[in-house]
Amino acid sequence: MSDFGLTGDFVGTCKGVILSIAPQATVVDIDHSIPEFEVVRGAEVLQHATRYMPKDAVYLAVIDPGVGTGRRAIAVATRSGAYMTGPDNGLLIPAAAALGGISEAVLLNNQRYHIQPVSNTFHGRDIFAPAAAYLAAGTELAQLGEEVAVDSLVRVGLPGIQKESGDKVIVAEIIDIDRYGNARLSAMQDELALQYGTRLRVRIGEDEMDVRYVPTFGSSKAGDLVLVPDSHRRLSLAINKGNAAHALLLNVNTKVRLELLEEEPEPDAELDTTP
Amino acid sequence: MSDFGLTGDFVGTCKGVILSIAPQATVVDIDHSIPEFEVVRGAEVLQHATRYMPKDAVYLAVIDPGVGTGRRAIAVATRSGAYMTGPDNGLLIPAAAALGGISEAVLLNNQRYHIQPVSNTFHGRDIFAPAAAYLAAGTELAQLGEEVAVDSLVRVGLPGIQKESGDKVIVAEIIDIDRYGNARLSAMQDELALQYGTRLRVRIGEDEMDVRYVPTFGSSKAGDLVLVPDSHRRLSLAINKGNAAHALLLNVNTKVRLELLEEEPEPDAELDTTP
Amino acid sequence: MSDFGLTGDFVGTCKGVILSIAPQATVVDIDHSIPEFEVVRGAEVLQHATRYMPKDAVYLAVIDPGVGTGRRAIAVATRSGAYMTGPDNGLLIPAAAALGGISEAVLLNNQRYHIQPVSNTFHGRDIFAPAAAYLAAGTELAQLGEEVAVDSLVRVGLPGIQKESGDKVIVAEIIDIDRYGNARLSAMQDELALQYGTRLRVRIGEDEMDVRYVPTFGSSKAGDLVLVPDSHRRLSLAINKGNAAHALLLNVNTKVRLELLEEEPEPDAELDTTP
Repeated sequence: MSDFGLTGDFVGTCKGVILSIAPQATVVDIDHSIPEFEVVRGAEVLQHATRYMPKDAVYLAVIDPGVGTGRRAIAVATRSGAYMTGPDNGLLIPAAAALGGISEAVLLNNQRYHIQPVSNTFHGRDIFAPAAAYLAAGTELAQLGEEVAVDSLVRVGLPGIQKESGDKVIVAEIIDIDRYGNARLSAMQDELALQYGTRLRVRIGEDEMDVRYVPTFGSSKAGDLVLVPDSHRRLSLAINKGNAAHALLLNVNTKVRLELLEEEPEPDAELDTTP
Repeated sequence: MSDFGLTGDFVGTCKGVILSIAPQATVVDIDHSIPEFEVVRGAEVLQHATRYMPKDAVYLAVIDPGVGTGRRAIAVATRSGAYMTGPDNGLLIPAAAALGGISEAVLLNNQRYHIQPVSNTFHGRDIFAPAAAYLAAGTELAQLGEEVAVDSLVRVGLPGIQKESGDKVIVAEIIDIDRYGNARLSAMQDELALQYGTRLRVRIGEDEMDVRYVPTFGSSKAGDLVLVPDSHRRLSLAINKGNAAHALLLNVNTKVRLELLEEEPEPDAELDTTP
Repeated sequence: MSDFGLTGDFVGTCKGVILSIAPQATVVDIDHSIPEFEVVRGAEVLQHATRYMPKDAVYLAVIDPGVGTGRRAIAVATRSGAYMTGPDNGLLIPAAAALGGISEAVLLNNQRYHIQPVSNTFHGRDIFAPAAAYLAAGTELAQLGEEVAVDSLVRVGLPGIQKESGDKVIVAEIIDIDRYGNARLSAMQDELALQYGTRLRVRIGEDEMDVRYVPTFGSSKAGDLVLVPDSHRRLSLAINKGNAAHALLLNVNTKVRLELLEEEPEPDAELDTTP
């Protein structure tokens, strides 16, 4: 996973490096379209991806605004048996936590495992890709460099939620807006006691509106604003056949307050499940 | 093949699922840029791709506007020895026909072969990708769910042609316009008795013009409208170094009438084959 | 590597052809975003990529404005043990030189190794991909067609530099502008005696300005024009957190004159290495 984008030879040369070192490796592109330098957004995607990747995967993740400066390069072993490598800027930490936590961490300072000469601008290719490949090929983590204390690693928190008034109100924030204008919230789908049909009051800035929690975009009339569980198991604000972000002027980082309304959920029979 | 687009983690998480179940599988991306929800356009691309894929391939195709509703999820075996899995909305049928027809079909209703919990919005990852992977790993089709009658499957026809006046006139429609403005027709290149140099009268709406059938875009003067056989073995309207769709206001679904003119083909020697 | 772009089924059907012939092959996409028909830009990317690919790779490169005309289709063996296949238009030559030079070349005129019927517009799929796959599967180069004299192959030169006034002045040209507006020059980073901190006078058309050679974009104040070594080991003009191409109206092919200034390099301590 990276912010290398879809054009150019960045991803391709990294794969050449990996396959030169570990010819038997199978390389999977998780996502190279993370917005440039957005470490937190990358960390969320990487954490989510761990649910679906092979248990013994080696994760290579590069969103690296500090390349060429003093930021450290690391590789870690997780308690689940996976490895991860990337810059020490927090990118790996939420994913590592989802994989049982970090059991061991090293700095990638053994130059034997770098591609020489190491560029100043592309450690993905020259330091991180070879580290991932050597790990995939069976090299011991400790060979790659000097051990480093796990609690010295840079951490970033993923945006979370704040609870108000017991379990009835949460304040989340928008962490992603997709090409359809659906706004992914920092709230996981199980952080409120929601049933399909439940009504909620949504407050964004000064505006308030009521929405229904429905199983999928199509479970509502065209033009209705709804709350849905999305592919990352998060809550998402969406307008069926419309663009919620345009309609409500939503942006990444916007705060969204969700309040459970007390009324009975509408009976399922009234849900329109035609897409 | 899917309409997932090129950005985001949709394709990557599906591949993680596949490789978790079938570590030896080789995954090929046929095309993820099918316009969203365009089942018929996807069906044409998938059918064409069967000419070039390994005989024992497992096809995973997801264009699924009905996800989360009552549409059925299926896997089929073809008489050529390939398998296909995807939504029961017609997407698979033309490709399956090109692979000798369907010998057996099942509903993907055995939850043991789903990724739990199954999301409402992403059966590609949670139902279809694991089905494809289990088939690639050798699981019997019948294990994936209950058998279903082949003639109960939803069918879509690919746009075809109508013949008029014997073999001299066909009416086709535009099924795709590429980034160069070339308009792919529903007519295959062998549906008219064409030789390079043959002249045809083209009628689009009220407009008529004459074109020549030439081997490739470059076989004409810059700015000439020509009819060429394209990479899908279909006829395509093109302007050498120009944009036929802009010049003629063409759209997908536009009807195009082609009439063979009686005159002798021009001798090959006059073709300008400079690109 | 190709100019096929990121959408459509061009790359996918080529991979199907390859894996049908060579099921054990691992396929790496180097770059499919080369601007359409830009043979020289593709040749530079391919040459650079050879630094990072496995030694025994088979390179399949298709930028082929002459497809369907008389241009020859070739495969070559390099002295390093790699193979390359593509159109005889110069695309392969700089990469082959980087791989030790060509030891043997053949025309791809043995139709047994083509996908039939061969289209007029897509030799990538019908001639070059199967050639690459047969080579990967162990077929002898000589089987693919008739031997051809290496010195008869079409050559393109990559843009180079001109030296003036000994080693103090070079004239290079811009060979690529990336999405950040960084302008990659034809000059390799070792073609001037540069140390980090060195000052240079840059002349572009009538304009002159002074820049510093720094290790990476971030080694300067926001808005400063700098010269940096880039991921291809070439010199690149960049503005930290800005867009050099927009600011200076730069285009591919623009000439850039670089003159080493005599003053002492500034001490490293003054470099701001904060990204």
